[in-house]
Amino acid sequence: MNYNPVTNEVIQALEQIVGARNVKTAPEVLEAYQSDESLTPDLWHLPEVVVSPGSTEEVAAIMKVANQYKVPVTPRSAGTSVSAGAVPVYGGIVLLMERMNRILEINTEGMYLVAEAGARTADIQAAAKEKGLMYAGDPCSADSCLIGGNLATNAGGNKAVRYGTTRHQVYAIEAVLPNGKIAHLGAPLKKCSTGYCLDQLIIGSEGTLGIITQATLKLVPLAPYKLDVLAVFTDLKKATALVPQLIKAGLNPTSVEFMDNNFVRSASDYSELRLPHYEDGIYDIVSIETFSEHELDEKMEKLAEVCEACGATDVVEADDRVWKVRRNCLESTRVFSRVATSEDLVVPVTKIAECIQTLVEESKKYDFLIFCLAHAGDGNLHFQIMKRDMPDDEWERQLAQFRAFAYPYVYQLGGRLSGEHGIGYKRLSYMEQYTDPVELELMKTIKKAMDPNGILNPDKIIHVE
Amino acid sequence: MNYNPVTNEVIQALEQIVGARNVKTAPEVLEAYQSDESLTPDLWHLPEVVVSPGSTEEVAAIMKVANQYKVPVTPRSAGTSVSAGAVPVYGGIVLLMERMNRILEINTEGMYLVAEAGARTADIQAAAKEKGLMYAGDPCSADSCLIGGNLATNAGGNKAVRYGTTRHQVYAIEAVLPNGKIAHLGAPLKKCSTGYCLDQLIIGSEGTLGIITQATLKLVPLAPYKLDVLAVFTDLKKATALVPQLIKAGLNPTSVEFMDNNFVRSASDYSELRLPHYEDGIYDIVSIETFSEHELDEKMEKLAEVCEACGATDVVEADDRVWKVRRNCLESTRVFSRVATSEDLVVPVTKIAECIQTLVEESKKYDFLIFCLAHAGDGNLHFQIMKRDMPDDEWERQLAQFRAFAYPYVYQLGGRLSGEHGIGYKRLSYMEQYTDPVELELMKTIKKAMDPNGILNPDKIIHVE
Repeated sequence: MNYNPVTNEVIQALEQIVGARNVKTAPEVLEAYQSDESLTPDLWHLPEVVVSPGSTEEVAAIMKVANQYKVPVTPRSAGTSVSAGAVPVYGGIVLLMERMNRILEINTEGMYLVAEAGARTADIQAAAKEKGLMYAGDPCSADSCLIGGNLATNAGGNKAVRYGTTRHQVYAIEAVLPNGKIAHLGAPLKKCSTGYCLDQLIIGSEGTLGIITQATLKLVPLAPYKLDVLAVFTDLKKATALVPQLIKAGLNPTSVEFMDNNFVRSASDYSELRLPHYEDGIYDIVSIETFSEHELDEKMEKLAEVCEACGATDVVEADDRVWKVRRNCLESTRVFSRVATSEDLVVPVTKIAECIQTLVEESKKYDFLIFCLAHAGDGNLHFQIMKRDMPDDEWERQLAQFRAFAYPYVYQLGGRLSGEHGIGYKRLSYMEQYTDPVELELMKTIKKAMDPNGILNPDKIIHVE
Repeated sequence: MNYNPVTNEVIQALEQIVGARNVKTAPEVLEAYQSDESLTPDLWHLPEVVVSPGSTEEVAAIMKVANQYKVPVTPRSAGTSVSAGAVPVYGGIVLLMERMNRILEINTEGMYLVAEAGARTADIQAAAKEKGLMYAGDPCSADSCLIGGNLATNAGGNKAVRYGTTRHQVYAIEAVLPNGKIAHLGAPLKKCSTGYCLDQLIIGSEGTLGIITQATLKLVPLAPYKLDVLAVFTDLKKATALVPQLIKAGLNPTSVEFMDNNFVRSASDYSELRLPHYEDGIYDIVSIETFSEHELDEKMEKLAEVCEACGATDVVEADDRVWKVRRNCLESTRVFSRVATSEDLVVPVTKIAECIQTLVEESKKYDFLIFCLAHAGDGNLHFQIMKRDMPDDEWERQLAQFRAFAYPYVYQLGGRLSGEHGIGYKRLSYMEQYTDPVELELMKTIKKAMDPNGILNPDKIIHVE
């Protein structure tokens, strides 16, 4: 695709829509929006203008201008993407959604909440909780991320094992389509066979098929009883074998988090805490929620049995200290390397043990530092791979080699490249390489039909000529 | 769209693909496939040829021939559609999926089952049960319908309140696209942020965006404890007010079925059974499943309380007799009228009481016979409307008038035209009339992009020029 530069004429048109104070071209502003939390600066690109709409109608008007002048538009939520999902690859307009941050309705009777795309996820969680209900979407970045970005990437998070990912929390969306029209898709219904499921098509499309401006989110009853257990292992095979056993036992956990010993040590150090088996412990943190005390007791008993049968050395209540260590995992690795990359592989839950073991074994052949963290209960593995002082070309070579082993292996297990972070710009070439050609072609057919000028978030997920 | 007739050349090409014995043009065969279970003969159309493929590759080859000769193709599952979903509106090829009826894999570890599109839903349920698991999709027609049709229409059914509709039971599909390519969409993963959600786009598209040839279905643990309760009311308002109260009480029922007194009487007569309050009873049947006896006892106690607080005159265990009456509802109405039509409206669960009351009140203005049945727990209402001996034009006039009241009213409540039966050909004009124009245009954009010749199941859901 060829795009036109953002001329003064375009700037004026944008200013007319959102007001001059919401259109920014100062170099320091453009620089601030060239990146997100992806740690690979070669993926970053400068926008030409940063625009902050205040309403859906303004977003729609901006898209019409962008089509008219053929200028690319990159919607940006909180910029917490680690996949270069918010990077304006071809410059153009970065569209900041954060002004549209209202929670418009909490319907306790119908058990749903309506929020604008720029509402903070943590604020939505808090608003639901205040009414005795729960919004079950809970990405690790909930304190900083915005709901629109959660929907765009189909974010996962801490409760996905029991409640599903973000797309499962949504009744309906309002979205501005690439052509600038405002669509209302989905409805707060338990059932519907009235036409194509377009809401789910746009959710998870990473802002390439539409700019989500509003969401009607499901709320669920808040389970009053909750307990988190830390099961400590000193053997990788035993630690990973726990997951399928938990499922078989019918425990329906809210989450099952796995941390390898690298992460246990780095995050404990960073948090200035010492937990059991700091030196050699591999951690599984299991959360259980119930609606009765009796059920919680029953499940806790069963959980302890299963953990012990799997060879856990310690089974203790996971208190705030454990969660603090868990939360600090990623931050704790920053001291090791300024340049790093993360993997977000996902496999069938029954394959997670095999997958972690194989990839950890494979990683020993390389010079980079590699730590493993997994939302094990839903088959989602994060490897944090750190460059340290490797030369650039060697880093690239070794990374490519590791991926050339890992990605086909994961696909062979029935897995995919991304469980929750999205493809973004970062994994574009791998997406093209590993996706079934018919599926890839169909994605491009739909993208071209909905966005013939290719102006909405180009080069995210797929590349369209 | 203009289509070409099925010539001898086309027949020969089809015979080469599936063998001569699987290509039928005898008038009595064509006549057998002009209709489905829709009871309005003016919607029926004769096919020109009926073809029975035995494999996905054969389906793909047929689609290539159909594109080459520009002949329309109407996929047909068991033909239990009541929306004229299987009617070949423009003649051409009817594609019978019933030969592809194998259950290919039951994976108890991964908790999924892989079946061809022509596998009978009841056989899938039985196969899962044999392994101690459950396939939660359960349309009322499970004994006769085929899984491909369930996916195509996003069928609802008896367990949707707790487990969701058919689209929520699916990990992955294999589908032949309108262009004849074979797509594998989705994967048996708990999480995925790897590209567009194309599986859900094709599921529920009623065979207009792809012919589903295979499905990987989720299995869930079989809840060992189950009890069904019949709550009898003699007041419509009280009977419909029960539903929101059940939800508020956190009972998480598997199903909540509502029968008005018309249905209670006709189905009891048909079944030759007398149940409580035959003369004036309105029935709510509530099913509860649990994983422990303790939980079942707790919930039963609460359920009885809620029913009594809502004014039930009788609260008794719903035994086989009750279910027999429930199952015979539709059959029992055939004696009243050969020509009839059914509504499949869906509204937010919190609006079901108001909706039933309003539409029952409205229906009193008309001469047709109208019975009401609802999957009340998921907001899905079925009205059976019977012509009896009304003159044709009067029937049309009164129906149109009733719908002109009911449909805008349902949309105003946040509802839609179809909860589980699909739009098919029957509701095409209403779909065009009541759907948000931006949503409708987007459906057509996608349909045109995926099926430029418009040959796959034309005039179902939407009409494309």
